[in-house]
Amino acid sequence: MPNPTAAMLVIGDEILSGRTRDANLHHLAQQFTAAGIDLAEARVVADDHDTIVAAVNALRARYDIVVTSGGIGPTHDDITADAIAAAFGADIDVREDARALMAAHYAQTGRELNEARLRMARIPDGAELIENEVSAAPGFILGNVYVMAGVPSVFNAMLARVLPTLNTGTPLLSASVRVERAEGDIAGPLRDLAKEYGDLAFGSYPFRDGDVYGANVVVRGTDKARIDSATARLSEMFA
Amino acid sequence: MPNPTAAMLVIGDEILSGRTRDANLHHLAQQFTAAGIDLAEARVVADDHDTIVAAVNALRARYDIVVTSGGIGPTHDDITADAIAAAFGADIDVREDARALMAAHYAQTGRELNEARLRMARIPDGAELIENEVSAAPGFILGNVYVMAGVPSVFNAMLARVLPTLNTGTPLLSASVRVERAEGDIAGPLRDLAKEYGDLAFGSYPFRDGDVYGANVVVRGTDKARIDSATARLSEMFA
Repeated sequence: MPNPTAAMLVIGDEILSGRTRDANLHHLAQQFTAAGIDLAEARVVADDHDTIVAAVNALRARYDIVVTSGGIGPTHDDITADAIAAAFGADIDVREDARALMAAHYAQTGRELNEARLRMARIPDGAELIENEVSAAPGFILGNVYVMAGVPSVFNAMLARVLPTLNTGTPLLSASVRVERAEGDIAGPLRDLAKEYGDLAFGSYPFRDGDVYGANVVVRGTDKARIDSATARLSEMFA
Repeated sequence: MPNPTAAMLVIGDEILSGRTRDANLHHLAQQFTAAGIDLAEARVVADDHDTIVAAVNALRARYDIVVTSGGIGPTHDDITADAIAAAFGADIDVREDARALMAAHYAQTGRELNEARLRMARIPDGAELIENEVSAAPGFILGNVYVMAGVPSVFNAMLARVLPTLNTGTPLLSASVRVERAEGDIAGPLRDLAKEYGDLAFGSYPFRDGDVYGANVVVRGTDKARIDSATARLSEMFA
């Protein structure tokens, strides 16, 4: 069976304005790759209702799993939950199970569960909560869409909770060979080797280290013995 | 006149597999924001011909400017130039102007302009070259699509060359106020202020600094006096 496919939707003006450098895509990519889920696409969009709705609907139709990050906090610019509900045509309001999680947390911390914070208990009908051990306000799952926080510590905690529940596939394995020869000098033989090992994917990533021009050649696939064989050949060829 | 709109297309398996953390989106976002070009969307796709063609065609129809990064090196996995040509229905082959740039560079460095390196002189018919002072192999401009390298030092050099030639708009200015109160406690008054200053955009980005829960409130707009007025109000309200 082929691996499940996935897409990520990063929601936030702050990424597109250059204020913040996104960290969640890189983490999700590593976790999904290790789990055998093929992250096939990522999109970054602004905090705009119609834009989020369109992107969610495009991605959820095309991929098995869609993960969103950002826009589920207490302030007026946090509009993701309502946009996801609209994408599914679902009603949304403060939900008792989400409110209870947050009430327990705020009772402990002594902070007030005010109207703004209650916005974070707005959950679409039919969604399953993703608990948040960092700051209580939950994410949620609606259909094949996993709605998570943008703050990296919270995103990571939510992902850790969700990952064991996902259908996973055959993990993509990889190995890297550092070649201290310029990429243009290895490209011909590398192409031939890639043809010979048609079941593996070969990527070449150039680097410059002082006066040394080189490339990290990365071999990816699901069969460790084949990857070992290919990297041994690479080392012979380009030692 | 409204600002020009732009999208970025990051091309590369290595980003989606988690091997590499993209750096070019963040740099482009900062440069475009300062130049008054609205970066409205970014996508990351794999090294797959049909996927790149579809993404380029979707984005170039929707935005004034599309910038791509990645996939223009000498190895077999570098397929961006051919995909861009296909997206435009343009022919592509080694072009004499690109070959001359590279021949001059390799004559200096003593490296061979071999068949693999000549792949980097494959330029679609009708495209304008983007010179590359770092490693000679050029990017190119076809229609409203700017095709640049994925290696950050080369991407940045190409962007610096292209930026002065773009139609730019009114730079988006921003100011940030650090508020040492939890986001949920400031959300109500912040929403009211955002309504009062309807010509500005207000973003709230929570942080935790030791025991302090706070938020950086960012005000964005094109009128410096209005931004100064709004940040003064924020400081009063949440000091």
